[in-house]
Amino acid sequence: GLARVIRILDEVRLKAGVDLFAEVVSKNNFPTGAGIASSAAAFSALALSASQAVRLELDEKALSILARHGSGSACRSIPSGFVEWTSGETDESSYSFSLAPPEHWDLADCIAVVSSGHKKIGSTQGHRIAETSPLQAARVADAPRRIKICREAILNKDFEKLASIVEKDSDLMHAVMMTSNPALFYWQPGTLQVMQSVRDWRAKGIPVFYTIDAGPNVHVITLKEKMDEVKEKLDALEGVQKTLTATVGGAAHLI
Amino acid sequence: GLARVIRILDEVRLKAGVDLFAEVVSKNNFPTGAGIASSAAAFSALALSASQAVRLELDEKALSILARHGSGSACRSIPSGFVEWTSGETDESSYSFSLAPPEHWDLADCIAVVSSGHKKIGSTQGHRIAETSPLQAARVADAPRRIKICREAILNKDFEKLASIVEKDSDLMHAVMMTSNPALFYWQPGTLQVMQSVRDWRAKGIPVFYTIDAGPNVHVITLKEKMDEVKEKLDALEGVQKTLTATVGGAAHLI
Repeated sequence: GLARVIRILDEVRLKAGVDLFAEVVSKNNFPTGAGIASSAAAFSALALSASQAVRLELDEKALSILARHGSGSACRSIPSGFVEWTSGETDESSYSFSLAPPEHWDLADCIAVVSSGHKKIGSTQGHRIAETSPLQAARVADAPRRIKICREAILNKDFEKLASIVEKDSDLMHAVMMTSNPALFYWQPGTLQVMQSVRDWRAKGIPVFYTIDAGPNVHVITLKEKMDEVKEKLDALEGVQKTLTATVGGAAHLI
Repeated sequence: GLARVIRILDEVRLKAGVDLFAEVVSKNNFPTGAGIASSAAAFSALALSASQAVRLELDEKALSILARHGSGSACRSIPSGFVEWTSGETDESSYSFSLAPPEHWDLADCIAVVSSGHKKIGSTQGHRIAETSPLQAARVADAPRRIKICREAILNKDFEKLASIVEKDSDLMHAVMMTSNPALFYWQPGTLQVMQSVRDWRAKGIPVFYTIDAGPNVHVITLKEKMDEVKEKLDALEGVQKTLTATVGGAAHLI
């Protein structure tokens, strides 16, 4: 992580033409290194705060690219609301932009924490290993189709469509990780328990779906009006330690 | 299942030129429809017994093909010991033959029964659905490579090599099933618990690996001399109801 912090600071120093030292303090209000996007949070915060500290005026795209240099997914935490990350081929064309503002759709994320331990293999290394799975090329080839469905589902607020494509995307990523060399198994017994429960609840008419990052914890997406109910149901599952909740966020900003 | 029983009987009647009725009674000494190859056992037994009942002399290859008409994997239960199923393109070229006799290698199978309930979607339907996964073509394309490694590992009694290719093959199949439409999730929390334990035990030097059929139960392969120890360890896991054991079998035969 430290090398990537230095990279961001060096880039800001170079762009701003300054040669200052910085004290970087990073804190999360959720478990770190557990597949809940702690590095995305940290590096988008660093990109924004470091550039603003030296009065470097970066537009949203440039800020998104800068954040990505710290952690790929950090580029998504810069714009507001529902965000798409372009599948750019070059450094300049890989960034995130807002598809819709937070108020477009009242979704909520109930994060079922199954294990708060720090994962053994970080996301960056995980991405590298993905190429060793015989399934990765097929997953990547099918990605534009999934992105399109996902984008349409968000724009049309089609919960069922979003549910099925997001779960599929999550399952595909884990399928690739589990079949890599070395195999990366992030799912714990409790993870499967939550996945099964979410599918059962949806079959019973509750608007929920899951998505799982590179970690054992499960993001259970629902409508904001159902958030408390879903959190309660998740908390009641044996394998769930606690459930964090979040609603759709705005753009990265200084506090 | 009944239509496939009739198919085998009709085929035997036709081949033998007889027009007899038969009473078919089938019993397993292990859970049925739970991913422990109950249909393979049933249809290899039916192919053998029906053809012998009418004095139809079929060689091993013909018997393997006949059994396959009941259930694909049943063709593997006809020959003795370590068996390969040819990837034949036609009905006549898809059958099983013995790679090595049972005494070639003292392996044992400890079947950790996590759930003995009958699965909702049978293997035959599962095979059909596989084509809807964006990953299936890649899995199939990579199959000859895996078969070759598996065959060599068996012939050379290379346990480590067999362990890694068999686990990979199992994980690939489940990756495809989980990403099909509809998605087929056979793993239960207890399944994952056994998988994790098996990997841990192997890392500690115990010769074990897992393979999972279309069901939640886990086949844990080990050396015969370690079978009792492994069964005991499996029985001690919270999610395991009981553990069945088997050693390498001979050819299908009348009792």
